[in-house]
Amino acid sequence: MPLCVVGSVALDSVETPTETRENVLGGSAVFFSYAASFFTTVRLASVVGEDWPPEHTAMLRARGIDTEGLRIVPGGKTFRWRGRYFQNMNDRETLDLQLNVLRDFEPDLPESYRRSKLLFLANGSPVHQLKTLDQCTGASLVVADTMDHYIRTEPDELRQLLKRIDGLVLNDSEAKLLTGDDNLVRAGKTICEMGPQFVVIKKGEHGAMFFGHDETYVLPAYPTPTVVDPTGAGDSFAGGTMGYLAEAATKKGTGPIYAQHPKGGHRPKVGRGKLDLSPFSLDPKTLKLALAYGTLVASFTVEDFSLDRLRKIDRKDIDRRLEEYRRMLSL
Amino acid sequence: MPLCVVGSVALDSVETPTETRENVLGGSAVFFSYAASFFTTVRLASVVGEDWPPEHTAMLRARGIDTEGLRIVPGGKTFRWRGRYFQNMNDRETLDLQLNVLRDFEPDLPESYRRSKLLFLANGSPVHQLKTLDQCTGASLVVADTMDHYIRTEPDELRQLLKRIDGLVLNDSEAKLLTGDDNLVRAGKTICEMGPQFVVIKKGEHGAMFFGHDETYVLPAYPTPTVVDPTGAGDSFAGGTMGYLAEAATKKGTGPIYAQHPKGGHRPKVGRGKLDLSPFSLDPKTLKLALAYGTLVASFTVEDFSLDRLRKIDRKDIDRRLEEYRRMLSL
Repeated sequence: MPLCVVGSVALDSVETPTETRENVLGGSAVFFSYAASFFTTVRLASVVGEDWPPEHTAMLRARGIDTEGLRIVPGGKTFRWRGRYFQNMNDRETLDLQLNVLRDFEPDLPESYRRSKLLFLANGSPVHQLKTLDQCTGASLVVADTMDHYIRTEPDELRQLLKRIDGLVLNDSEAKLLTGDDNLVRAGKTICEMGPQFVVIKKGEHGAMFFGHDETYVLPAYPTPTVVDPTGAGDSFAGGTMGYLAEAATKKGTGPIYAQHPKGGHRPKVGRGKLDLSPFSLDPKTLKLALAYGTLVASFTVEDFSLDRLRKIDRKDIDRRLEEYRRMLSL
Repeated sequence: MPLCVVGSVALDSVETPTETRENVLGGSAVFFSYAASFFTTVRLASVVGEDWPPEHTAMLRARGIDTEGLRIVPGGKTFRWRGRYFQNMNDRETLDLQLNVLRDFEPDLPESYRRSKLLFLANGSPVHQLKTLDQCTGASLVVADTMDHYIRTEPDELRQLLKRIDGLVLNDSEAKLLTGDDNLVRAGKTICEMGPQFVVIKKGEHGAMFFGHDETYVLPAYPTPTVVDPTGAGDSFAGGTMGYLAEAATKKGTGPIYAQHPKGGHRPKVGRGKLDLSPFSLDPKTLKLALAYGTLVASFTVEDFSLDRLRKIDRKDIDRRLEEYRRMLSL
C-alpha cells in the first residue's frame, strides 16, 4: 500500500567533532522515504533546483520510491542546510540555511498521489500542510510532523491542522513548547486533546513515547555505540513506523495482523478513544511493532552520514536487530 | 537474604515549583532501604544526630529494616539538605547543605552486618566506601553508587574501589564525566573495563541502561504523569533492584530462578564475561526483572514527597505496575 510523503529534499553539509561531509543527500522527505522503502512503496513529493544531481533520483527510484511528485525548478537551487554537532552528538547548531526553491514551494500533488490512503506531512509550514491535506481527500491515516519554528509563528494554523490529522510526531522540546508542560506524559495527553488520535514524542537517544486516548507506550532507543551523524534520525523513525503500518495494512487478511480483525473488511472510522482507522490496524501490537521498526531504522541511520548506512543494509538486518531489541525488552 | 546498605540519612527540605516540605525524612540509605524492604530484610548503617526523630527509626524497623547500625551521635545534628527543583522537575539546585554528623562518619559495622552476602555502598566518599568494604569480607555481591564530586576529588580512590566491586550505579552525567565520553553506550562499556562486572547508568525520566561485559539492556522509565518530588528516585531504583536480587537469591532452589542453576549450591565466582556471583542469579532474566522492579519502585517514589507515596503502597501495587510495564514493552 503506497505511502505518500510531502516534505523537504536537501543537500546537507554536516560537521561533527571528527568529520565533515559537504552537500550530501538529505531532507525530511528523503530520510522518511528511504526508511519507509524497507516496508512499502513510497510516493515522494518535494521540490529541488537545477543543481540537483539526477543520480539521487535514480537511487530513490531503484528503492521503489515514486518521484513523479519531485518537481525540478528550472534555474532554481536546491534547499541547503549546514549544521554542526556538538561533542555530545545530540545538540547541534545551524550554520547556514538556504531555503532556495523550498521558499515558494506550493504542494501540487500528481493525481496518482492524491488517492494515497496513507499520508505523512513532514516538517513544514502548517499552511502548506493544510493545502496538501486538501488535495489528499482519500487518505485514511494522516500523520504530520512539526517544529518549534511553526509552533511559534503559525500557532493558529497548527491548531487547525491538529484537528484534521490522525497523528502528530514531534520532538520532546517541541511537545513542551506546544503545551507549556515540562512533563512529557502530561504533554502527550494534552496534545491528544487538541485533535489527533495519537501523538508520538521523539526523544532522540532516549527513544520515543506514544500516546493514544487510552494508552501510553514508551520505547527506548536501540543502544548503538556508533553515532556518526544523527541527521535524519527523526524522519527515519517516522518513515520506518509508517512504512510498517503500510505493510501491515497491505498484509491484512493474510498475515497475523488479520487475527486482530476476524471479520475483515473495512470498518467505519470511529471516534475518539479507539484507534480504528480502517484499513490500518492500529491495535497495540501493530502500533508498537511499527514504533519499534521506526526506532531500529533510525538506529541504523545515525551510524553513518546521510543515507550511507541505510544503503548498506536490507530488511533482514532490521529484522535481526528487531529480534535483539525484542529480547532486550522481554521481562 | 539480608541486604546491607551504608549511606546517608538526612532531613531534607525540598522546594518544588508548587510546594515546599521542611525537614522530611531523606538520605540515600533511607530511600534505598525502604525500596528494598518490599523484597527483603535490610541492614541499614548510617549516622544521625540527637535531633533525629525516633519515630523515623520505629517506622523503618516496622518495615523489617535493621537499624542496629544507625548510630546516634550525642550532641550531634543530623545531615540536612535543602534543594529546589526547576520547572522541568529534573534539574535542581542545592540551596543549603549541612553535613553535620556525616562529616566525621567512619563506618564501623555491627558484627551481624559484616556477614551480609549483599552490600550496597550508597553515594559517599570512595575512601569510606573502601573502609566499609574491608569490614564486609563475606559479601558475594557488592554494588556502589558514586557522584560527580568524588569523581573529581578522589579519582584514585574511586579507581581502587572500581577494581573491588561487582557493580557500579551512577547517573548519565556522572558516567560521561568518569569516562570523558558523551556516548552512554560506550561510556558504560568503558566503566566495565575499569573493574566492575556490570554498570548501571541511571537516566532519570528516561530510564536506565545496564552494561555487562557481554550484554547491554536499556529500560525506559515507567511513564507516570505525576511527578511531585524526584528526590530519592535514584536510590529507590537501586534499592528496588538489589532488593529483588536478594529475594531471588533467597528463593533460589524453590522458585523459577532455580531453573537457571539446575545443579544448585555455590559455584565459584568466575572472571570477566560471566555474571556469576553465586548465590546471586545474575542471569539476564533475573537481572532485567530486578532493573524493572527498581524502575517501578522509583516511579512510585517520585509521585509524592519523601517516602509518602511508598508508605501508601504494598508489593501488590508494584506487581500490578510490573504487569502494565511488561505489557507495554512486549513486542
